[in-house]
Amino acid sequence: MPPKTIKPAQHLKPSGQMEEEGKVLASKKLAEPQSEDNAATNDDILRAVQSLREDCSKQFTDTMDAINGIKSDLLSQAQRMGAAEERISQAEEDVIALQHKVNKLEETTEFLRNKVQDLEDRGRRSNLRLLGLPEKMEGSNMCAFIENFLPTILRDEFGSPPVTERAHRVGQVNPNRPSTPRAIVIKFLNYQDREKALRAARKMKELRYEGQRISLFPDLSAETRQRQRQFDGVKAQLRGMGIRYGMLYPAHLIVTHAGQQHVFKTVAEADDFVRSVRTTA
Amino acid sequence: MPPKTIKPAQHLKPSGQMEEEGKVLASKKLAEPQSEDNAATNDDILRAVQSLREDCSKQFTDTMDAINGIKSDLLSQAQRMGAAEERISQAEEDVIALQHKVNKLEETTEFLRNKVQDLEDRGRRSNLRLLGLPEKMEGSNMCAFIENFLPTILRDEFGSPPVTERAHRVGQVNPNRPSTPRAIVIKFLNYQDREKALRAARKMKELRYEGQRISLFPDLSAETRQRQRQFDGVKAQLRGMGIRYGMLYPAHLIVTHAGQQHVFKTVAEADDFVRSVRTTA
Amino acid sequence: MPPKTIKPAQHLKPSGQMEEEGKVLASKKLAEPQSEDNAATNDDILRAVQSLREDCSKQFTDTMDAINGIKSDLLSQAQRMGAAEERISQAEEDVIALQHKVNKLEETTEFLRNKVQDLEDRGRRSNLRLLGLPEKMEGSNMCAFIENFLPTILRDEFGSPPVTERAHRVGQVNPNRPSTPRAIVIKFLNYQDREKALRAARKMKELRYEGQRISLFPDLSAETRQRQRQFDGVKAQLRGMGIRYGMLYPAHLIVTHAGQQHVFKTVAEADDFVRSVRTTA
Repeated sequence: MPPKTIKPAQHLKPSGQMEEEGKVLASKKLAEPQSEDNAATNDDILRAVQSLREDCSKQFTDTMDAINGIKSDLLSQAQRMGAAEERISQAEEDVIALQHKVNKLEETTEFLRNKVQDLEDRGRRSNLRLLGLPEKMEGSNMCAFIENFLPTILRDEFGSPPVTERAHRVGQVNPNRPSTPRAIVIKFLNYQDREKALRAARKMKELRYEGQRISLFPDLSAETRQRQRQFDGVKAQLRGMGIRYGMLYPAHLIVTHAGQQHVFKTVAEADDFVRSVRTTA
Repeated sequence: MPPKTIKPAQHLKPSGQMEEEGKVLASKKLAEPQSEDNAATNDDILRAVQSLREDCSKQFTDTMDAINGIKSDLLSQAQRMGAAEERISQAEEDVIALQHKVNKLEETTEFLRNKVQDLEDRGRRSNLRLLGLPEKMEGSNMCAFIENFLPTILRDEFGSPPVTERAHRVGQVNPNRPSTPRAIVIKFLNYQDREKALRAARKMKELRYEGQRISLFPDLSAETRQRQRQFDGVKAQLRGMGIRYGMLYPAHLIVTHAGQQHVFKTVAEADDFVRSVRTTA
Repeated sequence: MPPKTIKPAQHLKPSGQMEEEGKVLASKKLAEPQSEDNAATNDDILRAVQSLREDCSKQFTDTMDAINGIKSDLLSQAQRMGAAEERISQAEEDVIALQHKVNKLEETTEFLRNKVQDLEDRGRRSNLRLLGLPEKMEGSNMCAFIENFLPTILRDEFGSPPVTERAHRVGQVNPNRPSTPRAIVIKFLNYQDREKALRAARKMKELRYEGQRISLFPDLSAETRQRQRQFDGVKAQLRGMGIRYGMLYPAHLIVTHAGQQHVFKTVAEADDFVRSVRTTA
């Protein structure tokens, strides 16, 4: 919509003409005496007074015209203001309606974001992240390598070798630590095999392969890993205090202390707990 | 943006001074006669008239000054109004642009909500909901129990036992009906096994295990189940009328009546159908 | 919120009364002479002047009253304007806040749209689209047919027959080409079988079954296929120029030319490349 054109206020014409009349009034001398003896007769004077009265009357009329013009302007400005106020009210209503809709949209997208994150994580439930295997050790067929490798390092956990659907390196080699190999993500055909591998790794505490330390983790979406990493600081403190903890999906910290389990949904809650334990210890 | 400061209207100074002049004009008597006989000469009178003329002229000038000041105020108010109207126009345009964007966002989130719901349901396509199995009957290994349990109650439907990836109780025991066991959700490795189980259950009409009635359902997202439950009332009426019906994914009611199939996407449509059948019956 | 009611500007009453006074001033003749000789005495004249002075004074007072009323109006209009300007400022702030939120929402929904599309495609990673198999040739059990059909046309690629979870025709027969059969979507239990089938089909270049040409493609979401189809024109040109190309997920064109690989994320980029090759050729 183009901006409304501004109507010039009506009746606001230059008032020069009226000022002119004012000067005429001020400078006008009494009319020349009309009697022949050159002395002002009373009739002359009365005419002068009458003329002044007429001039004043004329001025008063002009003044009133100007005032009426102004009043008319004021009235139309008041109407213009009224129209503007109605537009403002309409805009305010529209803004409020938009705010409600936007709040609703924010809730919906937050809901969808959580759903999508959950779907991403569910799609990774049969996946394992394997850290520490030197680059290239897998040869040219990662799946075949993994199906053989896991039963080897996890000993007799697998009755039959696991079936992998996919397995590949992820991310890029960190240029600052070129000897740190990239993670491997393994998708098992059956979720049970992923669980077997994680259970066996927990039981064995340390996995080694040709001198390399190997670690196994569930595979989670980038968002969930990011949320879990926020607890890294408080986890380090808990380790230092000898307190047991674990992560609950998606990113809740579960702490076992003095025979009680505590679940913290935010880092702040967990920090408070650590502080309170330190204080009472 | 802070609210604009309100500029005081210009020229709106107290007009006390001008009123003062008005009173002077009213009270001023004619100048003392300047001739010695104490009678007003014509020259005295003419001077008085001239003085009045000058006073009037002065008043008129003052009035015109005031009027010009007011006109100038009106002009600047008109400009101020013009500026305000332009801001309103801009805000109106912005609001319209926002409304379009918000409408688009509402469509997009609705599209995404449906997609996400569909993805959730797809992720459950190999899942079965099993109702009626008393709590704890499964022992400590739900998967092993189910792989044995299903071929038992479904007889010879499964050539080889189904492979389950996961199986667990869901939800919480209803405190008002503590003897009603929680549902069990079973994820089969292969969708075919889920279909076999549902087909067999439909064929057998009633499943019983150690005296307990067992029911099998497809596993659907909470949203889809919620949408399907809206048809519960109309389904009860159809059952009462002996009319066959079924659910189509995600939440459409399919009714077979008088040799014709009807698909209803909303409860209202289905209600209309029930009413029309009752009327013609 | 209802539109504010427009307050009538104060003091803008009809000024008829004051105009009346103006006419009185203009028409009023000098008072009748009070001396008996019917000639105006100087005292008569002075009274007339004094009367005129009083009338003028009265007029001036009336004028000033009107002007003061107007000034008061102007002041209240200025205040009203100030209030309106504050409301505009508030609305402008609200609009800016909304714009930020809406921009954020647009980013979030775009992020979610990509995530959802990716999830849809991931859910189809074990799926194959098979084109060209005449309608009805599959008989009544599509899965059983496919598990037998694929090893037959792909020769010895499959050591053991693939396990299919689902297989069905998709879409509708095109009424303009009724002899073109609908596509078949096959979901393999194991992604490896999908890959085996695609690899074997690529190796064999042309697949034929009972005289029909059969093609195999990865199964992608409608959105991704739509994005890939945008490259159809440029692909046809590349084929005409004998240049090798392929699609990278989700919809990037990879072109191998003069020993170099080029990846184009948009059709425009690919068009530019084709033009530059034509120019230099």
